[in-house]
Amino acid sequence: MAKRVGIITSGGDAPGMNAALRAVTRRGIALGYEMIGINRGFKGLLDGAFINLTIRSVSGIINTGGTILHTGRCAQTKTAAGMNRAVKAVKELSLEGLIIIGGDGSLAAGNTLSKKGIKIINIPASIDNDIYGTDETIGYDTALNTAVEAIDKIRDTATSHDRIFVVEIMGREHGFLTADVALAAGCEFIAVPEIKVDINRIASELKKGKEKGKTSEIIAFAEGCGSSYEFGEKIEKLTKLEVRVSNLGYIQRGGRPTARTRILASQFGHFAMNLFHRGKKNVLVGITNGELSVTSIEDAVKHKKKFNDSTVKVLKNLSV
Amino acid sequence: MAKRVGIITSGGDAPGMNAALRAVTRRGIALGYEMIGINRGFKGLLDGAFINLTIRSVSGIINTGGTILHTGRCAQTKTAAGMNRAVKAVKELSLEGLIIIGGDGSLAAGNTLSKKGIKIINIPASIDNDIYGTDETIGYDTALNTAVEAIDKIRDTATSHDRIFVVEIMGREHGFLTADVALAAGCEFIAVPEIKVDINRIASELKKGKEKGKTSEIIAFAEGCGSSYEFGEKIEKLTKLEVRVSNLGYIQRGGRPTARTRILASQFGHFAMNLFHRGKKNVLVGITNGELSVTSIEDAVKHKKKFNDSTVKVLKNLSV
Amino acid sequence: MAKRVGIITSGGDAPGMNAALRAVTRRGIALGYEMIGINRGFKGLLDGAFINLTIRSVSGIINTGGTILHTGRCAQTKTAAGMNRAVKAVKELSLEGLIIIGGDGSLAAGNTLSKKGIKIINIPASIDNDIYGTDETIGYDTALNTAVEAIDKIRDTATSHDRIFVVEIMGREHGFLTADVALAAGCEFIAVPEIKVDINRIASELKKGKEKGKTSEIIAFAEGCGSSYEFGEKIEKLTKLEVRVSNLGYIQRGGRPTARTRILASQFGHFAMNLFHRGKKNVLVGITNGELSVTSIEDAVKHKKKFNDSTVKVLKNLSV
Amino acid sequence: MAKRVGIITSGGDAPGMNAALRAVTRRGIALGYEMIGINRGFKGLLDGAFINLTIRSVSGIINTGGTILHTGRCAQTKTAAGMNRAVKAVKELSLEGLIIIGGDGSLAAGNTLSKKGIKIINIPASIDNDIYGTDETIGYDTALNTAVEAIDKIRDTATSHDRIFVVEIMGREHGFLTADVALAAGCEFIAVPEIKVDINRIASELKKGKEKGKTSEIIAFAEGCGSSYEFGEKIEKLTKLEVRVSNLGYIQRGGRPTARTRILASQFGHFAMNLFHRGKKNVLVGITNGELSVTSIEDAVKHKKKFNDSTVKVLKNLSV
Repeated sequence: MAKRVGIITSGGDAPGMNAALRAVTRRGIALGYEMIGINRGFKGLLDGAFINLTIRSVSGIINTGGTILHTGRCAQTKTAAGMNRAVKAVKELSLEGLIIIGGDGSLAAGNTLSKKGIKIINIPASIDNDIYGTDETIGYDTALNTAVEAIDKIRDTATSHDRIFVVEIMGREHGFLTADVALAAGCEFIAVPEIKVDINRIASELKKGKEKGKTSEIIAFAEGCGSSYEFGEKIEKLTKLEVRVSNLGYIQRGGRPTARTRILASQFGHFAMNLFHRGKKNVLVGITNGELSVTSIEDAVKHKKKFNDSTVKVLKNLSV
Repeated sequence: MAKRVGIITSGGDAPGMNAALRAVTRRGIALGYEMIGINRGFKGLLDGAFINLTIRSVSGIINTGGTILHTGRCAQTKTAAGMNRAVKAVKELSLEGLIIIGGDGSLAAGNTLSKKGIKIINIPASIDNDIYGTDETIGYDTALNTAVEAIDKIRDTATSHDRIFVVEIMGREHGFLTADVALAAGCEFIAVPEIKVDINRIASELKKGKEKGKTSEIIAFAEGCGSSYEFGEKIEKLTKLEVRVSNLGYIQRGGRPTARTRILASQFGHFAMNLFHRGKKNVLVGITNGELSVTSIEDAVKHKKKFNDSTVKVLKNLSV
Repeated sequence: MAKRVGIITSGGDAPGMNAALRAVTRRGIALGYEMIGINRGFKGLLDGAFINLTIRSVSGIINTGGTILHTGRCAQTKTAAGMNRAVKAVKELSLEGLIIIGGDGSLAAGNTLSKKGIKIINIPASIDNDIYGTDETIGYDTALNTAVEAIDKIRDTATSHDRIFVVEIMGREHGFLTADVALAAGCEFIAVPEIKVDINRIASELKKGKEKGKTSEIIAFAEGCGSSYEFGEKIEKLTKLEVRVSNLGYIQRGGRPTARTRILASQFGHFAMNLFHRGKKNVLVGITNGELSVTSIEDAVKHKKKFNDSTVKVLKNLSV
Repeated sequence: MAKRVGIITSGGDAPGMNAALRAVTRRGIALGYEMIGINRGFKGLLDGAFINLTIRSVSGIINTGGTILHTGRCAQTKTAAGMNRAVKAVKELSLEGLIIIGGDGSLAAGNTLSKKGIKIINIPASIDNDIYGTDETIGYDTALNTAVEAIDKIRDTATSHDRIFVVEIMGREHGFLTADVALAAGCEFIAVPEIKVDINRIASELKKGKEKGKTSEIIAFAEGCGSSYEFGEKIEKLTKLEVRVSNLGYIQRGGRPTARTRILASQFGHFAMNLFHRGKKNVLVGITNGELSVTSIEDAVKHKKKFNDSTVKVLKNLSV
């Protein structure tokens, strides 16, 4: 009888999760495994909710957003009792191991389970790109393009009305997405959690820009910097200029994955099953300096990905 | 010497204003006029800010959002003194008449100016589609598609997380956009200012839907129905289900015009100059039952466009 | 026992067929029918290939291209023997009637079947917009936008290289799509089967345009006007200018339906089942002058939709 | 008086050239240079056609396709006489050096000029991604997404009609683009110039796929593999299955640059001017293993970029 491997998508959804599911499933079956898809994240694992994945059940999903397995944040993954039940569930399903597709919460859960003896491979999927051990996560390039296209639209209005806009971008703890969005959208200013925001300097430069004849100015504002609406009001008070605020919100999570996201997801999924088959365990797959890479889950959990402020510098030099 | 005609874009920007500008300008020049573009709406008229428009100065703009003339809401258009100054400005610029591209504010200004003896043709441009005298305004089809594509993305997350979403759509006084968006995006519920919202019924149906196994439910919520965030909180309390709120915001105003918006804008602009040339004045151009139409500005100002609730009925019948 | 109604998608696929399927199915079930989806067009009917459609089996398809039932052109629909077998198949499946979603071939098949006593409602779906009895077909607005966006991209290259482009657009017998595409994309010239193409005039104007300093010129060329490649070569010979040819090809058929296509498809499907339920038969649903309309299939088959050359006139006036 | 630096876009246009122009111009001005934009590639250099670039003249172009300077392939760059005239032109314009944005032709021209004593920095821009010395060229990610989105649309029709499609993708000598497109679009087969195409194997697998019940099969076919139409006909003969051919053509060159293309272009342009300012010359900027890199033009011209067949392997393993 074929050995069984479980696949789970967990935490916030990210575009490309389905492309990764397809790759893991098809590679797994080719390598002789029976592939079991767990429904609704770790909650489904605890509930015993799963389906058998076949070559055909992952057809036509490479270009779809979300995850066909559904996902969820599961409070029980943070308790010892919950994790013990998860271990039991893995054994009841006779799973040889678990491929977990998700962000930092999934990594933490993978770490706990691996210490309890379950063979784990983590695949990084998150629109925040905040996982140590990979230069890029599945979904990041898609969210980046979604946000940039949204700001392109806002730019039309900003220019037509000679207005200042504050645009809020996802990222509770990190400014990776905001910095890349700002550079690609040609934003004039940026606020990220990693760098102290000097609102007085921004206000003073906005006033100078107006005097120089700039017709629109857009401030890319990361979610983690506080309330974008309060920030906009303060800017308005400081500059006496008209300011509008737009929170891009949930559109950043969904949508068809970009080509790059699909390629990354396909390669990660294929690589993950190859590693599993070769007996590798308790690692996170990733891409580092342009090459597929492997990091121990323990290391990935322990370290925080470094924010590269060179993007912010280039932005400052070009947004003049 | 050629007679001069002024063109002005006024009020909130809408995609397709540039396509209309191009059509008015090129048709005007072909008919022998000198075409004067007023900058920044009526404020620019009062300030004497204008440019000469040539065949080439409107090249390459048929597919761009915003307005190359810039626009603005101008408080002075609402005072007698302001309007008198506008009349004076029209005369100082030796303008034979004024083509005004904009929404209901522009129509009101056009009405006032026409009564003061200025020859006016109004071209309806507004993402709200709320102008009496035309079945469709320039920009409407574009905003409709932008909002629908945004909800398609949100649907991915809603389905993956089995969640309820409240999505706020532009429309302070009208639900035209919200109703069409909801039908096209397959939203399960709708809240528009024209119809009393029964939150208890919605909550009760949401609970029933959950029991039937619906994986996601989206409520299309028009700006004019109050705070979408408060609405979402109430739904959460009533249903004990997880609810998320996303305000589509300013992305609905900008972006490349759709084919339909460009065609409408080109036809309106071409038609407006033909009418002007034939001595027609003080009218709004439009499209009514599939044909180009003409309504007196006075009539257009007086009447309120009727909300067609058949869309809401079809939506209710299909969102099961 | 519930009465059974068959649904079939037939001929070339068009975006929005799925949205129509969803509407027909859900409205049909609400009215008490059992809805039977025939696979692969009339071929599937002859083969007895079908599925039961439920409320849930049409979930999540409102925004997808193609048709979940699959489609095909079936040679047997053109023979008496084939059509007699189709009648037999309808009876074997105990179908009360047939809702046919498709283009002119589907209409002809519907006509034949209706004369053999089958209750038929035709829903017009075709990217060509060439069906008499409706101002717009399902899929048309989507194909229009796809082609226009493609030409926007080609314009970038045409302008950067100061080149002439011939762009071939679908439409074997009609220029509806080409004319609207040309107007929306700001094309400089147009070739459609309905109007004699004067290649010498085009060549001469291209040369004049070059002298006036036009940086790019695009000729929208309908499939039905012959070989776009030969046309391009002739233009090159006549003008001694560099010409490139691009055939947009099959991308025009697929893709996510636009908002307008989805709304039209939803309304047509809903309306078709309401008509069927009220005993109406052997009609084509449509939209005429902005209102839902009904035409007898016989009339629709007999007449040819008139090409409106006003679009071509506006184009000529604006592309200067 | 400020030192002058020339900027030139040359060869086939690529999305992101404008973003690079913006970065070079703004960084150059900040570093104290007068920036001269040469029109229409090397032809413009020989003709003395140029404009002064200011901070504002590159506003609003970060998100546009094509190149505002226009471009062209210039036969004279391949003759000694032509190159000598180019050197003379550089001196007449008092240019300190030349920043050349383009593909392999631009690189060759840069190499020749550098040997004649002109200070050159090359910035790689090409949708083919075929430049040695950089893992990615400006425009590549955009063309990749354009082609993948096009195939997504074709997939709708392929699936609805259970058909085989051959899709031709740009790349006269290389299969980089085709391989990445195929992986991202989930194509079933691939034909690239770097790998011998076994048409009999493809035909035999297509027949097997049909028997297994695959509903659609797409063959990604690089331009450099010959005529896609002849290939499609052969497949049809060998398989007796219906085959359609679609050549994506010029849409692959144009369009709004993706976020990644804009970021790459901004970083390359910024980096190029920094290098120039530090006295570096006769180099190609690039990105290698995730880091900005520098390669001597001479080396870049001499070497051929290696085709990575791991993409093809992953594709084969996943397209089952």
